[in-house]
Amino acid sequence: MADSPNCDLKSLSPLQLFERVTEQGEKVRALKAGKAPKDEIDAAVRMLLSLKLSYKTTTGQDYQAGLPPRDLVLINNGTTKEENEDFVDPWTVQTSNAKGVDYDKLIVRFGSSKIDTDLINRIERAIGQKPHRFLRRGIFFSHRDMDQILDAYENKKSFYLYTGRGPSSQAMHVGHLIPFIFTKWLQEVFDVPLVIQLTDDEKYLWKDLTTEKAYEYARENAKDIIACGFDINKTFIFSDLDYLGTSTGFYKNIIKVQKHVTFNQVKGIFGFTDSDCIGKISFPAIQAAPSFSSSFPQIFNGKENIQCLIPCAIDQDPYFRMTRDVAPRIGQPKPALLHSVFFPALQGAQTKMSASDPNSSIFLTDTPKQIKTKINKHAFSGGRDTIEEHRKYGGNCDVDVSFMYLTFFLEDDDRLEQLKQAYTSGELLTGELKKVLIETLQPLIAAHQERRKQVTDEMVKQFMTPRKLAFEF
Amino acid sequence: MADSPNCDLKSLSPLQLFERVTEQGEKVRALKAGKAPKDEIDAAVRMLLSLKLSYKTTTGQDYQAGLPPRDLVLINNGTTKEENEDFVDPWTVQTSNAKGVDYDKLIVRFGSSKIDTDLINRIERAIGQKPHRFLRRGIFFSHRDMDQILDAYENKKSFYLYTGRGPSSQAMHVGHLIPFIFTKWLQEVFDVPLVIQLTDDEKYLWKDLTTEKAYEYARENAKDIIACGFDINKTFIFSDLDYLGTSTGFYKNIIKVQKHVTFNQVKGIFGFTDSDCIGKISFPAIQAAPSFSSSFPQIFNGKENIQCLIPCAIDQDPYFRMTRDVAPRIGQPKPALLHSVFFPALQGAQTKMSASDPNSSIFLTDTPKQIKTKINKHAFSGGRDTIEEHRKYGGNCDVDVSFMYLTFFLEDDDRLEQLKQAYTSGELLTGELKKVLIETLQPLIAAHQERRKQVTDEMVKQFMTPRKLAFEF
Repeated sequence: MADSPNCDLKSLSPLQLFERVTEQGEKVRALKAGKAPKDEIDAAVRMLLSLKLSYKTTTGQDYQAGLPPRDLVLINNGTTKEENEDFVDPWTVQTSNAKGVDYDKLIVRFGSSKIDTDLINRIERAIGQKPHRFLRRGIFFSHRDMDQILDAYENKKSFYLYTGRGPSSQAMHVGHLIPFIFTKWLQEVFDVPLVIQLTDDEKYLWKDLTTEKAYEYARENAKDIIACGFDINKTFIFSDLDYLGTSTGFYKNIIKVQKHVTFNQVKGIFGFTDSDCIGKISFPAIQAAPSFSSSFPQIFNGKENIQCLIPCAIDQDPYFRMTRDVAPRIGQPKPALLHSVFFPALQGAQTKMSASDPNSSIFLTDTPKQIKTKINKHAFSGGRDTIEEHRKYGGNCDVDVSFMYLTFFLEDDDRLEQLKQAYTSGELLTGELKKVLIETLQPLIAAHQERRKQVTDEMVKQFMTPRKLAFEF
Repeated sequence: MADSPNCDLKSLSPLQLFERVTEQGEKVRALKAGKAPKDEIDAAVRMLLSLKLSYKTTTGQDYQAGLPPRDLVLINNGTTKEENEDFVDPWTVQTSNAKGVDYDKLIVRFGSSKIDTDLINRIERAIGQKPHRFLRRGIFFSHRDMDQILDAYENKKSFYLYTGRGPSSQAMHVGHLIPFIFTKWLQEVFDVPLVIQLTDDEKYLWKDLTTEKAYEYARENAKDIIACGFDINKTFIFSDLDYLGTSTGFYKNIIKVQKHVTFNQVKGIFGFTDSDCIGKISFPAIQAAPSFSSSFPQIFNGKENIQCLIPCAIDQDPYFRMTRDVAPRIGQPKPALLHSVFFPALQGAQTKMSASDPNSSIFLTDTPKQIKTKINKHAFSGGRDTIEEHRKYGGNCDVDVSFMYLTFFLEDDDRLEQLKQAYTSGELLTGELKKVLIETLQPLIAAHQERRKQVTDEMVKQFMTPRKLAFEF
């Protein structure tokens, strides 16, 4: 076909691609309006979808009618996306490398610090326990000011943990559990209070949702979070839509942040444009405010200067870089951070697992059979095309999604190392590796489902009620 | 002096003037740093002040170092300021005409409706009383949808009143009372609930204030408002800093408005720039939200569709034009409005009375002697230069500030007409007209001060507690 959309698309700029999608959209509408033959309409729709996909691959953004592609700014430095450069912001993670994002480069770009062996050893000494596998395996790989947290901890000064989730749907996938699994471990080993923010207001602003629906998702997601095993006496979970209207301390911190951040700044950090709604533009302050203990007077007895530690995926760092910039100007301590890598999509580490693409995700509600089918069908393999070749040359663990998932979920270090060697040498076949992953994930998810069933509405209500926790401040 | 600042300033553009002020500021700093002779520094400072004044006259904005003049956009139509065009936005009122702003033109520009004799007669029939002098004399001169309010009222459908104040200092002046005097009358004649918003968060964002200080001003201002005589069983006064953290209904409406207004829109309406903080950019939603009854579930029993009527000075209209634009898109009724003229500064109707310029204002705390001195010394006179000329040609009530104030505060229509004729004919001298004003204002302000003394902290607390009012919904 003369106008096949894929032949020359790679040479087009994002704006040219945007125009191609727009034109094709108009063509489809015209064909439909003119009641053209079904074949012709179908072909035009297929081409439209294909063009949209190219647009997304090139720009890292979904095509939106009337909204030309925003500049692909690299966070915090204002330069445009270079060839082969990874794109990371709170909404999009995109790389051309099957091994995933280059995290060492990201540390340099974001200006954070690597979690090195010295720091891991120091954590081990401080808590007197073996560090979590996420630390041992570089899944939490970057930090800001973790040494200050440890200084304070060694001097018997307490801190608190803050993490969160944007409840965009009822369906949470296994990747969503990563920060919660790690936060639960931190809470246990350091014995500190924890606040968990559910940004239902953010999801209302960004998605086609009512406030009621967003709040409902927040409550449903809270059940999955509670099922991770958090201590009800030490944990406060809150929905923004709910808590903002019940805490003057929270709103005061929000407006303090909002006074000290300009539109120019959020434009640079988050890529907002003049066409964005004022809710999105001011939202970053709402994610920033829980970093300050005075947002929770009921927990911290009104104390203003309790240090905060935030475990999160590194795509959330822009919010907290902004927060750390503002903190001293409003007389508050800067929050410390622990950053994790992204949890890869089943199809490969070029992008993170996304609940909006069911084929890319293993959901916490999936049955053992669904888990098995999805892994067998979709998990990107680093194995060879034929058994013969695989035996001869071995598989590639660096790009194999099943192996990556095992680094997240298989506790036994020795077993993981054995699997790696066996797969790399060609001794272990793709199907066998997938079987190990299936047998690891099935009981984990079944156990999660069992714990979730035990979570009653009454428990959710308790976790979400602003109250004193089992700590004195 | 060769470089007298005033000789050629009128020919300069706002940007050129801005640069002249900046240069002169640097010159002053250099002189001070170089320990130049006192005379030389004083002369340079005088010139700096003079340049700043020219800048303010030309642009209608205070000079701010590093912040070039923003475009003088006419609200809602995007064209720039023409020669002799009045400038009106929520922060600045400026006209070159001594009679004050051309309100007929403003009605056309803002797209509101004139309060004509028919409407005033209809209000009189509806309430069975003589309309307030502010209506009889065109002080409330413009409206939006007041006929709908009357349609509903005649069909026994209730509505509620919403007005407010930005508490930028403890000192309120007589001009601040205008909307409250009128609102109190509306509350009495229509017997409806009233909510009064104190935008302490706005003042925190715009001024060099702490949140604590802004909240303190809100409470102090509440006392002056309560002293106007509002019914405690029918009135809820709230500080944003306080109420936003105690009402989820309020926050939900704020974020709904924020989702439906873009930065482009607030830029066009309020003249915000990329250098403004995100708090200012999103604030308009906070002034919009009390227009919706669901912001006050405790008063309206959760009912969403109670009609709102907003009496305010016309410079607040941009907020509510935005609100009316959003309302149908979030399933809410548009608020109706009654607009008043501005209360002129003592120095003349080219600008409104401003608490930040003590010489332009008669404060509610002024003593009888201060009132007398200020009026005699500063009230711009429409009289002639000599008694002889005045007797011969008569005075001009259109530009005489004392006469303008009497139209606001002298209840007796016949007496006001007599004064006008006597002044215009030259029979009444400026000093005599000022004496009438002094004798009108002194007892009014003394009575206000007396009522204010009766306002206890306990009463303030009651007015400001979210609660059911004496109405069933």
